[in-house]
Amino acid sequence: VKQVFASVLKVGLIGSTGYSGEELIRILIRHPKVKLVCAMSRSIKAPTGVEKRFGDLRKQTDLKLIPIDEEKIIQECDLVFLALPHTQTMEWGKRLLAARKKVVDLAGDFRLKDPILFEKWYGKKHTAIDELAQAVYGLTEFNREAIRKSRLVANPGCYATGVVLAAGPMVKEGRLSDTELIADSKSGITGAGREPNARFHFPEMAGDMWAYKVNQHQHQPEMEQALSRLGKDDIQVTFTPQVIPTDRGILTTLYARVHPGWDSQMWTQAYRKFYAESPYVRVRDVGDWPRLKDVVGTNFTDIAISVNPARDRMIVISVLDNLVKGASGQAVQNMNVMYGWKETEGIS
Amino acid sequence: VKQVFASVLKVGLIGSTGYSGEELIRILIRHPKVKLVCAMSRSIKAPTGVEKRFGDLRKQTDLKLIPIDEEKIIQECDLVFLALPHTQTMEWGKRLLAARKKVVDLAGDFRLKDPILFEKWYGKKHTAIDELAQAVYGLTEFNREAIRKSRLVANPGCYATGVVLAAGPMVKEGRLSDTELIADSKSGITGAGREPNARFHFPEMAGDMWAYKVNQHQHQPEMEQALSRLGKDDIQVTFTPQVIPTDRGILTTLYARVHPGWDSQMWTQAYRKFYAESPYVRVRDVGDWPRLKDVVGTNFTDIAISVNPARDRMIVISVLDNLVKGASGQAVQNMNVMYGWKETEGIS
Amino acid sequence: VKQVFASVLKVGLIGSTGYSGEELIRILIRHPKVKLVCAMSRSIKAPTGVEKRFGDLRKQTDLKLIPIDEEKIIQECDLVFLALPHTQTMEWGKRLLAARKKVVDLAGDFRLKDPILFEKWYGKKHTAIDELAQAVYGLTEFNREAIRKSRLVANPGCYATGVVLAAGPMVKEGRLSDTELIADSKSGITGAGREPNARFHFPEMAGDMWAYKVNQHQHQPEMEQALSRLGKDDIQVTFTPQVIPTDRGILTTLYARVHPGWDSQMWTQAYRKFYAESPYVRVRDVGDWPRLKDVVGTNFTDIAISVNPARDRMIVISVLDNLVKGASGQAVQNMNVMYGWKETEGIS
Amino acid sequence: VKQVFASVLKVGLIGSTGYSGEELIRILIRHPKVKLVCAMSRSIKAPTGVEKRFGDLRKQTDLKLIPIDEEKIIQECDLVFLALPHTQTMEWGKRLLAARKKVVDLAGDFRLKDPILFEKWYGKKHTAIDELAQAVYGLTEFNREAIRKSRLVANPGCYATGVVLAAGPMVKEGRLSDTELIADSKSGITGAGREPNARFHFPEMAGDMWAYKVNQHQHQPEMEQALSRLGKDDIQVTFTPQVIPTDRGILTTLYARVHPGWDSQMWTQAYRKFYAESPYVRVRDVGDWPRLKDVVGTNFTDIAISVNPARDRMIVISVLDNLVKGASGQAVQNMNVMYGWKETEGIS
Repeated sequence: VKQVFASVLKVGLIGSTGYSGEELIRILIRHPKVKLVCAMSRSIKAPTGVEKRFGDLRKQTDLKLIPIDEEKIIQECDLVFLALPHTQTMEWGKRLLAARKKVVDLAGDFRLKDPILFEKWYGKKHTAIDELAQAVYGLTEFNREAIRKSRLVANPGCYATGVVLAAGPMVKEGRLSDTELIADSKSGITGAGREPNARFHFPEMAGDMWAYKVNQHQHQPEMEQALSRLGKDDIQVTFTPQVIPTDRGILTTLYARVHPGWDSQMWTQAYRKFYAESPYVRVRDVGDWPRLKDVVGTNFTDIAISVNPARDRMIVISVLDNLVKGASGQAVQNMNVMYGWKETEGIS
Repeated sequence: VKQVFASVLKVGLIGSTGYSGEELIRILIRHPKVKLVCAMSRSIKAPTGVEKRFGDLRKQTDLKLIPIDEEKIIQECDLVFLALPHTQTMEWGKRLLAARKKVVDLAGDFRLKDPILFEKWYGKKHTAIDELAQAVYGLTEFNREAIRKSRLVANPGCYATGVVLAAGPMVKEGRLSDTELIADSKSGITGAGREPNARFHFPEMAGDMWAYKVNQHQHQPEMEQALSRLGKDDIQVTFTPQVIPTDRGILTTLYARVHPGWDSQMWTQAYRKFYAESPYVRVRDVGDWPRLKDVVGTNFTDIAISVNPARDRMIVISVLDNLVKGASGQAVQNMNVMYGWKETEGIS
Repeated sequence: VKQVFASVLKVGLIGSTGYSGEELIRILIRHPKVKLVCAMSRSIKAPTGVEKRFGDLRKQTDLKLIPIDEEKIIQECDLVFLALPHTQTMEWGKRLLAARKKVVDLAGDFRLKDPILFEKWYGKKHTAIDELAQAVYGLTEFNREAIRKSRLVANPGCYATGVVLAAGPMVKEGRLSDTELIADSKSGITGAGREPNARFHFPEMAGDMWAYKVNQHQHQPEMEQALSRLGKDDIQVTFTPQVIPTDRGILTTLYARVHPGWDSQMWTQAYRKFYAESPYVRVRDVGDWPRLKDVVGTNFTDIAISVNPARDRMIVISVLDNLVKGASGQAVQNMNVMYGWKETEGIS
Repeated sequence: VKQVFASVLKVGLIGSTGYSGEELIRILIRHPKVKLVCAMSRSIKAPTGVEKRFGDLRKQTDLKLIPIDEEKIIQECDLVFLALPHTQTMEWGKRLLAARKKVVDLAGDFRLKDPILFEKWYGKKHTAIDELAQAVYGLTEFNREAIRKSRLVANPGCYATGVVLAAGPMVKEGRLSDTELIADSKSGITGAGREPNARFHFPEMAGDMWAYKVNQHQHQPEMEQALSRLGKDDIQVTFTPQVIPTDRGILTTLYARVHPGWDSQMWTQAYRKFYAESPYVRVRDVGDWPRLKDVVGTNFTDIAISVNPARDRMIVISVLDNLVKGASGQAVQNMNVMYGWKETEGIS
């Protein structure tokens, strides 16, 4: 359908059959400035029409999924997206940078700047320390300049995106009176990946909800690092991830204690100003709490704010699609920034 | 909670952690005339409180799940329920009968009277031919007398139960003008068992529906055998099983061509008369189509009938809970009949 | 985002806040050859940003919903989509045709050619007999030539679309040995419209399924008329609509009796040939039964076929999105045909 | 099924067709010590078999729903359950007490001791001040003695039950270092009642989640009152109610700041000791976070605790069924206490 110009960017994808990889394919095959020339997967043994895996794509593309082939991807691509499980991308990052490729990594390997912290939370020694130092944290709204110049973008975790977008402005404004934030997040099940599992078997998960990895989720240090870099204080996040019976979307309820003086309206205005140049953040009117469906299938994050002045207690709710703004949409948004294109190019 | 009399029946269960086994446990621990003395499972390595597997049973029973132990079950039990996968119960049936136990088998091993047919549909040679000959098909409403005298009951398949209850009276009345019935069934996902699987992974199945094993489902010959035995004709069933995004329940829409003369009202009366002594079949008023929720969690099958006289076309809809009337509830109903107890004892 | 050329078609929409109207808005605001200049609704009292109703459209369009204004729509639009309840569009059709507008009607008012039949099934006397005579039934795949020349397209019902696409080729081939077809359809709840209702209240419908209007649904005569026009025979359809607990999608299982001679493979080939020029019909391989998710959110209808030669029994399953191919997508597809544009323009 | 002794308690129910009333009926018709002699509803115009409203009860009871009849309920009943909307029970409470009946009120009318506070949160002047003074707050686990002697029990709100059971022991122990608690609750949709509504229309709510009445929910002052009465301090609760796409169950995540010294294990032991005599509270092992399904359909509340000693931050998660422990189950539990019966009588 779309014309491919000589000047089009050739992109590759390693990890094509997980939910993030699938979503990247859906975006990239329609993106007017790129051509997805290699879509590779560890679970693919021979070239296979993408419609064999994702039946709805039948008659919509002639893309083939192919086995992993490092030489091919280096020869054919300018930029590579890595949509592999955590701890499996650091070596790829190292080799692709060495081959002078640009990289957007959707795993956690290049997010935590401190290799000790990485090892503690991901259970594996980091083997690409130099590249880790070069990596830029790809929360687009907070890091555009660095992303623009970067060759290796560490795309944020889905929970972390929702928490940092909700808390970032108040941290940056220096208006926290308590450096601990509470983030109570509820996620659809695609966040847990595509691998079948007893707890996510349909009859089990239908009608169910539960918390997991309370204070033990690897996105917690990521949020703390990202937020602490925004202001003068070290920020702690008490983070409770929970799953709800739906496929997509994360709703985070953030609780903070703030200096007195600003009411809900003033905070809302401050957030709007903060995100004025960010096409994918929508700050809602006071009292207009967002629903998951406002953002599912889109790259938007919607945010609403309420302050209880009697207690200096601030509540911020953010919603996003964990596979789009929380993964593949933001990855493409970051690519757009890296190439100086319009931030929304090919996404909506 | 419940008093155990000296005269209580000691029952055993082999296969305690699948959905049918779980449901049997829930019924049996409350049944006033039995004591569940052995609940065994292949996946249990050492005695384990049942609440470790089914958390809601915490503080409700001190039942322990134990590993399979043939000697123990033979020494301690009078009757054994087999809730194992198909083809794994025929040997158990043989050995338990030899040990003079009574058996209710929830698998398909003793349903098809013809061992050739069994092998064709279940892919394995039958090794308990004598016992197969003795087995009684446990569709309670059609077989009470034989069940009462039986030592081996082949509990029907979930789909077959819904189809035979819907079609049985018209077949028995000899009013079919076409010996082919069409049964379009829609089932919740517990029908597929507890084993996680890519197609039943929550994010895949949420919002989805599909047909499978069209004309190839092993309940089809079971329905045909059961219905053909009710009248003079060989009945064919064109059977389309389909899954819908819920956990429990089967709705079957049955299409038959009948001799002219009876309208919806007359058919409804005929069915009511037919099931007058059956506490678990409820024939609804004309036009009052049943919903799954009318029966989920119960042992009832609800049935409604519509006839289009212009085409001699009859539509019968039945709903049941695949784990209760379609499996464990009916198994207990059959045990009640085997011991001459009230058919509803301990079930509702 | 999209450039608007002087030559762009100006379209209007009456009925903007139901599910079909909403879906039309989503398609039309991105369609490169049209501009949606009037989006009117009976429930809108003053111009209102569309994002007030459909929150996810915030920051995506500056479209305003406005109250119904006949004069305005006649002055400003070339073509009008009618997305109102049944029996409310016939007068609009009359007046808009009189004003020399083109019309695509998504209600049932212009589908049944016989006004007597219309009155019987819709409970209201038809008041636009001349326009009814001019109307073309907009099942695109069967009527392209007539649609191209038409000024009034009666867009098909959602169930009818799935049934006629599944049955059409076999009827047209003249290979039915029995003129009665059985169509067992299962629909998501958007098919029932946006009006809240006790039976569709979330806690009621979650986990439920039921049949309704068995042999009494107004799409039944529509299917019969459409199919009967394809061949020499009068076709009867025994139609059972049912609802399943999901928001979107219809799966229809169609049962037919056919002349002997063709197996599943040959039928599949015949259907593929039949739909070779139809971009939105995908005929699947034998045994590859479609799932709802293959089509939800798209304008595709996926079809698969199985024949049991022993009984001359043919089963065809079709799936579609009731709001896209079953309503708004097909409406735009028909507009594309009316203007000689590519059939897929602006849809995918 | 159940024998009715001369000494059985005659109970009445006003409000039989909402979700709480329905659930009360299901419990009461099986309760061995009571007979439900009057089940009244404002929406019932003439005596109607209960199975006409709740189809699954067909063939299970001959109970009839009848119109409201004050004289009859006073003549025939010893105790009356009120399952009406808020602000509609205060007058009933007054008149029933005057007629020397016992009352369990499931609405909010008698929960807030301060009539000013009542008027602020419920928007209506309280007209039964004397009865309000007599009413006992029916959170069984904290108030058994008072309930035993009471003639008017104010059954707690569903959210309040989950929050107070989770927070009560730590408040009573006097170990809070901050008097503000944060309660982030997620509820199934039955909590919103049976009245259909655009936001709870199935296609809207499926796959959705959102917060509402943040800091404005009427259960907030109820929690604060109940908790403040347990210790020396005034407790504030920052309360965020949210809905998730399921029918039943509430999961509350509670955040507190506590004095240093106790770890998760010690807190768990303290809670277990606290609830040692409470059959319906189950305190889970550290790290064994409860799921909704552990309690849905039961009167249990499951609780698990985690403490992060580095921050003196305590997280307590509680789950319950909003219609059972959060409404009708607890109402019957309270009746059992009022009559000196076993607390679990007739409930499980």
